[in-house]
Amino acid sequence: MNDQAARIATLNAEYARAIDDDRLEAWPDFFVEECLYRITTADNHAQGLQAGMIWCDTRDMIRDRVVSLRKANVYERQRYRHIVGQSAVLPSQVALKTETPFLVVRIMRDGKTDLFATGRYLDEVVEEDGVLKFRERTVVCDSSRIDTLLAIPV
Amino acid sequence: MNDQAARIATLNAEYARAIDDDRLEAWPDFFVEECLYRITTADNHAQGLQAGMIWCDTRDMIRDRVVSLRKANVYERQRYRHIVGQSAVLPSQVALKTETPFLVVRIMRDGKTDLFATGRYLDEVVEEDGVLKFRERTVVCDSSRIDTLLAIPV
Amino acid sequence: MNDQAARIATLNAEYARAIDDDRLEAWPDFFVEECLYRITTADNHAQGLQAGMIWCDTRDMIRDRVVSLRKANVYERQRYRHIVGQSAVLPSQVALKTETPFLVVRIMRDGKTDLFATGRYLDEVVEEDGVLKFRERTVVCDSSRIDTLLAIPV
Repeated sequence: MNDQAARIATLNAEYARAIDDDRLEAWPDFFVEECLYRITTADNHAQGLQAGMIWCDTRDMIRDRVVSLRKANVYERQRYRHIVGQSAVLPSQVALKTETPFLVVRIMRDGKTDLFATGRYLDEVVEEDGVLKFRERTVVCDSSRIDTLLAIPV
Repeated sequence: MNDQAARIATLNAEYARAIDDDRLEAWPDFFVEECLYRITTADNHAQGLQAGMIWCDTRDMIRDRVVSLRKANVYERQRYRHIVGQSAVLPSQVALKTETPFLVVRIMRDGKTDLFATGRYLDEVVEEDGVLKFRERTVVCDSSRIDTLLAIPV
Repeated sequence: MNDQAARIATLNAEYARAIDDDRLEAWPDFFVEECLYRITTADNHAQGLQAGMIWCDTRDMIRDRVVSLRKANVYERQRYRHIVGQSAVLPSQVALKTETPFLVVRIMRDGKTDLFATGRYLDEVVEEDGVLKFRERTVVCDSSRIDTLLAIPV
């Protein structure tokens, strides 16, 4: 694995670890200030539909989302476990674009465990002050059934 | 990770990505022309039984399978998401043999998501024109319940 | 990936492979003699509770566990499939500490497959005779529902 591939793998692993450890306040810092974070479905994405289930187009919006989530106390009721596959670097002349498969398991407060979501991250990655960050992260969920209302970030 | 390990990881990741992206026509190209692709169960494999649930012993047979799958339109009804673990290089004097654990999630058209299969790939990998390909891929499914009739390749 | 990261990834992959291949007699050898292996839950771990569901504080205890498991013949009834994510090296001045996410699928004798456990390994890794081994492995399961009575090691 070359150096860039290793750095992309670590970015993805650390992102997942921050969420799974409930260190949500660290989550916005994986993005640059002018960014796009959205969650959509494979069907919507294939049809070129822009509207996602979640849409944050600045890092401040992502921070606001964390505040809302903390207020909603949803974290007393569930946690996530991400399993992330190897990233592919997509052909692009203008930016570092990557695709990474993922699987998220949800563990409810009472211990009930289920397969919450699968899909792929479509990312645009940039370097800021020597650190890789997301300028864009589009979470394309395989299933259209995903319910992200008040849920933890994927 | 050394160069060979990185190349094997990428071969496995790209194979899974082609299937999960529904780029099935690219699937045969992961094999050399004289090849063996088969799906079997751990029990049958442990007993040394050759007969698998799927058996293709040339790349043309693999291509034929893609044609059949397209005709059956099964892809309107389901998609897969592979999560692939790290490959182990097995001791061998005569070929590059690897073993790779996998998990496949199936997402039905209506959004229903379930754990479809787990197991390990037992592979023989060769280099052809500078590209790593499978001379043999034996998909050993952990469960004997797997139903591969008309299903997407694993 | 640097050399240390690659070696840690391989240690984790080989550990999982030994268990999933039912080579349980090889399992104790992933530990040094003076070691700690325990399974606990995220809730207990967060509260600083020491008591885990399984607690072995020497390699001999781990070996004894293998003997018990073989006698109980539980392996005729189930097998595991581990999927292991990328390890993070944790900040530490005194030891090599790592954290690794995992997911375990359980396959029952009749083929029934379910998501058995998710969580993270919290490890202390040391080198012994040129080989990386665990001085400590704490398996922190996300769910409190896990039943490890007579079960295969995680």
